[in-house]
Amino acid sequence: MVKLTKRIGGLVLRLAAFGAALAALIVMITSRERASFLAISLEAKYTDMAAFKYFVIANAVVSVYSFLVLFLPKESLLWKFVVVLDLVMTMLLTSSLSAALAVAQVGKKGNANAGWLPICGQVPKFCDQITGALIAGFVALVLYVLLLLYSLHAVVDPFLLQKS
Amino acid sequence: MVKLTKRIGGLVLRLAAFGAALAALIVMITSRERASFLAISLEAKYTDMAAFKYFVIANAVVSVYSFLVLFLPKESLLWKFVVVLDLVMTMLLTSSLSAALAVAQVGKKGNANAGWLPICGQVPKFCDQITGALIAGFVALVLYVLLLLYSLHAVVDPFLLQKS
Repeated sequence: MVKLTKRIGGLVLRLAAFGAALAALIVMITSRERASFLAISLEAKYTDMAAFKYFVIANAVVSVYSFLVLFLPKESLLWKFVVVLDLVMTMLLTSSLSAALAVAQVGKKGNANAGWLPICGQVPKFCDQITGALIAGFVALVLYVLLLLYSLHAVVDPFLLQKS
Repeated sequence: MVKLTKRIGGLVLRLAAFGAALAALIVMITSRERASFLAISLEAKYTDMAAFKYFVIANAVVSVYSFLVLFLPKESLLWKFVVVLDLVMTMLLTSSLSAALAVAQVGKKGNANAGWLPICGQVPKFCDQITGALIAGFVALVLYVLLLLYSLHAVVDPFLLQKS
């Protein structure tokens, strides 16, 4: 019975991670706002920033991976390799979220030392939607860290909870 | 004999990771250049960018952790917990390197969509030293990923190399 609940627990975490990564992807891709600035009409979209494009690619990869792993048979030896792939996905989410956050922070506050003005004053809705995508990306990351700790706990017992 | 070589291998990886994280920290902290721009004298330093400050803090944490773990007794049960801490350090290095890279990329190329001009034209030596710090940070990250795979391999055998 315990094994069954553990297995279902793992699948639920993976399903939630799939949902969060997909949401982050969709919210980021659909973030766009038109604004006029000194009589010039501008449109802000996620493709304007390399870090946001990286965020989209990373969450797309994680979404596909999370979906495929749901169909891996229980007895498959590949589950041993899934631990390493979970690690890779966790690093990909960590990296893309951090890069997008760093650039979003500059977009929100600007950087006086570098002479970069903030942009969120002109395109507030765009910035709010980017924030939403980053939150969804953070949820996906937390779920993947839980998945990793869950896999590590099953094999390494790092918190010494199992009676030896 | 195999166990001894494995143990020494682990310690050498940790020592190298300690050296790389410390180098990244020192190179980033000492990066500074004075430049004059439209008769204004400016000094570029790592504290100008939040992402670079984050990079310094992360590599400082990893350096201290890597140094302390070197003194952990072989038989200690804490080694089981070190796998989780190695994961945390790997994520910290991934995150801080990605954030610093995202901002450095904007510093090097600017971003026309956001109206941000590149800065490396005015402070080329500063940018070169930042690049050096990011390379050292990347080496520390690669070493930590190897350490993680090494720990996972010892307990999970994800590449199914051990004869069952």
